[in-house]
Amino acid sequence: MNEYLYPAADMRFVLQHLIGFDRLCRDCGQDAVDQALADEILAQAGRFAQAQLVPLNPLGDQRGCRMGPNGAEPPGGFAQAHGQFVAAGWHALTLALEWGGQGLPRVLGAAVNEIWQSANMAFSLCPLLTEGAMETLVCHGSTALKQRLLPAMAEGRWSGTMNLTEPEAGSDLAAIRTRAEPCADGYRLFGQKIYITWGEHDMTDNIVHLVLARLPDAPPGVKGISMFAVPRYLPDAAGEWCLPNDVRCLSLEHKLGIHASPTCVMSYGEQGGALGYLVGAAHEGLAQMFTMMNSARQAVGLQGVAIAERACQQARAYACARLQGTAADGTRFAIVRYPDVRRMLMQMRASIEAMRALAYRGAADVDNARCLADRGLSQRYHARADLLTPIIKGWCTELAQEVVSQALQIHGGMGYIEETGVAQHLRDARILTIYEGTTGIQGLDLVGRKLLHDRGAALEALLDEIDSLAERLSSDTDLAVQGARLAEAVASARIAQAWLIQQAPVDPAAAGAASVPLLMLLGYLCGGWVMGLAALQARAALALGQGDEAFLHDKCVTARFYSEHLLPRTRAALESVLAGSDSIMAIPEQRL
Amino acid sequence: MNEYLYPAADMRFVLQHLIGFDRLCRDCGQDAVDQALADEILAQAGRFAQAQLVPLNPLGDQRGCRMGPNGAEPPGGFAQAHGQFVAAGWHALTLALEWGGQGLPRVLGAAVNEIWQSANMAFSLCPLLTEGAMETLVCHGSTALKQRLLPAMAEGRWSGTMNLTEPEAGSDLAAIRTRAEPCADGYRLFGQKIYITWGEHDMTDNIVHLVLARLPDAPPGVKGISMFAVPRYLPDAAGEWCLPNDVRCLSLEHKLGIHASPTCVMSYGEQGGALGYLVGAAHEGLAQMFTMMNSARQAVGLQGVAIAERACQQARAYACARLQGTAADGTRFAIVRYPDVRRMLMQMRASIEAMRALAYRGAADVDNARCLADRGLSQRYHARADLLTPIIKGWCTELAQEVVSQALQIHGGMGYIEETGVAQHLRDARILTIYEGTTGIQGLDLVGRKLLHDRGAALEALLDEIDSLAERLSSDTDLAVQGARLAEAVASARIAQAWLIQQAPVDPAAAGAASVPLLMLLGYLCGGWVMGLAALQARAALALGQGDEAFLHDKCVTARFYSEHLLPRTRAALESVLAGSDSIMAIPEQRL
Repeated sequence: MNEYLYPAADMRFVLQHLIGFDRLCRDCGQDAVDQALADEILAQAGRFAQAQLVPLNPLGDQRGCRMGPNGAEPPGGFAQAHGQFVAAGWHALTLALEWGGQGLPRVLGAAVNEIWQSANMAFSLCPLLTEGAMETLVCHGSTALKQRLLPAMAEGRWSGTMNLTEPEAGSDLAAIRTRAEPCADGYRLFGQKIYITWGEHDMTDNIVHLVLARLPDAPPGVKGISMFAVPRYLPDAAGEWCLPNDVRCLSLEHKLGIHASPTCVMSYGEQGGALGYLVGAAHEGLAQMFTMMNSARQAVGLQGVAIAERACQQARAYACARLQGTAADGTRFAIVRYPDVRRMLMQMRASIEAMRALAYRGAADVDNARCLADRGLSQRYHARADLLTPIIKGWCTELAQEVVSQALQIHGGMGYIEETGVAQHLRDARILTIYEGTTGIQGLDLVGRKLLHDRGAALEALLDEIDSLAERLSSDTDLAVQGARLAEAVASARIAQAWLIQQAPVDPAAAGAASVPLLMLLGYLCGGWVMGLAALQARAALALGQGDEAFLHDKCVTARFYSEHLLPRTRAALESVLAGSDSIMAIPEQRL
Repeated sequence: MNEYLYPAADMRFVLQHLIGFDRLCRDCGQDAVDQALADEILAQAGRFAQAQLVPLNPLGDQRGCRMGPNGAEPPGGFAQAHGQFVAAGWHALTLALEWGGQGLPRVLGAAVNEIWQSANMAFSLCPLLTEGAMETLVCHGSTALKQRLLPAMAEGRWSGTMNLTEPEAGSDLAAIRTRAEPCADGYRLFGQKIYITWGEHDMTDNIVHLVLARLPDAPPGVKGISMFAVPRYLPDAAGEWCLPNDVRCLSLEHKLGIHASPTCVMSYGEQGGALGYLVGAAHEGLAQMFTMMNSARQAVGLQGVAIAERACQQARAYACARLQGTAADGTRFAIVRYPDVRRMLMQMRASIEAMRALAYRGAADVDNARCLADRGLSQRYHARADLLTPIIKGWCTELAQEVVSQALQIHGGMGYIEETGVAQHLRDARILTIYEGTTGIQGLDLVGRKLLHDRGAALEALLDEIDSLAERLSSDTDLAVQGARLAEAVASARIAQAWLIQQAPVDPAAAGAASVPLLMLLGYLCGGWVMGLAALQARAALALGQGDEAFLHDKCVTARFYSEHLLPRTRAALESVLAGSDSIMAIPEQRL
């Protein structure tokens, strides 16, 4: 079972009813783009994924990456597929037109990206990182640097990477030791980076590494980090990028999953220094990295949606095909008849639809923040996107673990057999709560930078918005219970927020102790928010007799299921928050 | 990092304070056995595990099983380790003295078994299944059959297996098609069995397969299943068991985890029929299987405890060693300082201690049910063990998934690298919610056979007991909040039970829809029960100045953490139960 059909109906529903895609395009001055074009693009992406990427997914998992004579090699077929991907123009969908991209809204890019990540997460990490690198260069690079690097990237001939982590510097970037020394033609870099995704491969002619390093005069800590663009190949006298730079992949990691994605230990400057170009101003690498990181974090949250969708499709197909039960008349029936199997399928469905809607909302917020002429409105969208980013990254990837595990569970013993394929999704998905900042890091970002920073103004605005949605739900008799549940969940969030603002100044461990439970609380709440909106929109469409009646009915059921089975988790999360740090910190380290 | 120290202090605390091990031994007429002997046996087991089983665990994972010229072969070193295991007398600890075992209480056997499963789950499945097979033969075999098979098993020269599943008969045993035909010297079996753990190997001289099959006159469905003992080798004229029976392993499964445990496709009767001996009466195989299954289900629950303990130890060591943070004075500190890391470690600890206490209680209930002379009391223990078995199997293995995943999470990127070793625990653990009956099957067993069968009398008795504990907790000012939380959780269970009894007759999907949420509700509640007991006992010991003060203090903290962070999940589970089957069943199968 190795099939995948992109979830066309739900994607369209989210774009049309929860995002207001046509209006977003108009607001962003993208008059040529509308829902109909989006539908067509998504359909093309679905076909490409099914034809090119899906078949490579199990093959890539089995074969993995190897070190060949020319360095790291992805599995056979990947380079060809990447060539097709680029030829079809998929690699620079959201890059600005002026830099050779297609300038499409990010929310559409997110939907397309969901398709790639569902089809083949290991493969699709390469264009995902390239997109982040291009975006960082667009935002922070000098015009000269952009002109030097972006055209080839925009043509899909070059890929990009993020080089942050070092053996002693993971979450703690202050400990970065890679150094950069000024030289005549730029900077020479020396150091080792680890966990570099697609750090070396043969799918593109060149690779632009965005590397965090320290200049000789750098202040200590994170304020002394600068960003450099270090190409794998440098230009010769004729301007052809064919001279090897002093950078190479030392080895590949042997990982639990995403076997087809080369995770490289990269070495810079073994032979006199790797030539790099400073990106933006010196010592501002952290801020620049966050451009890349925020984009990547939303994208990783979306990977959670994508792999959950993929695993769910497989589980659904298995549940409908696997005969395991005998009716009174002696005929056998499929396990999908069992209420507990149905419960798991509904839980997966409700989780996925909530995650998808939230992740797309986050992407649309970024579009609005960038495009809207009204400065105040733009800033509000910006604050909203900033608030949602750690929630999308943290909550969607945590929830994805549960969904893929349930998908495996539905397969019974077959799920544990590698050939069935669902175990690959479980193994692949397990990286998602770790890379681009663990869930713990997302929690700290949320409480530190988002909730305590402006005393939670962005959260207040969100909670007010959800409260007013809860009121609207409550005024519809059929949705009143959902409205009440949502209002209760908002109340829990307010209690948690008030607790945090009160405790953080008096207990240094409070914010850290509460961070992840609070993130999960807000995640489940936001899921309830978007599913509540979805229920309202679906009922409105049904009342008007517009749209696919069956789909709209099912959306209402799924929203109800969400409010019954997932939203109540906010309450348990609140209890965790309110418990504070006492019992967490009471056992001394050496006795833990 | 490949180390394991058996949790001596917690094991002793549970046996002494939550089981009353000395009294249990006296009640069971085991005057020679006491806590001091148990401590010594556990210490010896810990040393054996560390020396013999722990080093083989990663090697077995990497090497896996192969088909050799003589059939399935476990990894190198396993046969030698099994020889040592038997030589040390570990293979028949709880088997009755009259059959050559050591006749130790099952609860002590459970504690020793936890050590084996922590050290090397793949290896330890073999003795685990052999123990279940011996027990089944003791309970159901004729004297002649016992005399024929048990001595060699009791000497550790033969192992045992369970052969239930067929390609078309997994959870639905009614579909079993393997057939048995009477013949002069017993029965001839024909059919294929799948997922047979340790179905073929070279660690013992012979293997006794307990096989479910149908006799020619069998009624349809589960009432027509009989159990047969089918040895791999049959006796020659001289009585030496060396003639190959008509049974062989066709192939090995390529699994997500427990690579060193051969999971066999077994073929019976390709060449005229595999000779087997009927176990007990014809057509009563299901009941006999449940002897084996109930024992195995408690043992699998314990595997959940064991692998969680192992993964937690690794995570704790990593968290204390991994420097990732810089203090104000410039010194680096370990990630264990971060409250969120501490929260995860505490959650793992609280989960494990609750699971361990519950699993040992379940084993002790079986001891009491078997030994106590008072028939009424014995029956009450029997009913309690029956009630707890699906909870121990379902809840402990589900919670174990969360613990091993958190253990991996604490490692950050390192956790995703196979060489780190923690990913093996995640892969190994994933089978636990599947084999010996999925969590869904445990849920159906719980609601069908345990709650609805006697209108929940055994549950009522348990809830009353927990309620009175909650009262005792509430009378201690320091534990009053825990008492109140526990009382609330009991109230949730009562509401869920009442709902089930009311809904089951009117909604055919109700019991199935509620089954797993109800199982999880009762699991978290039982965890709160045993941790509440633990807190009371620890405080009593502290008040008397007895025992290790630091350990007792930490136990109180852990119990508090449990009531703050895990017990509140009962509430969300109740919401799931009360939601009923409407939203679960509302979307037609073809649109799921």
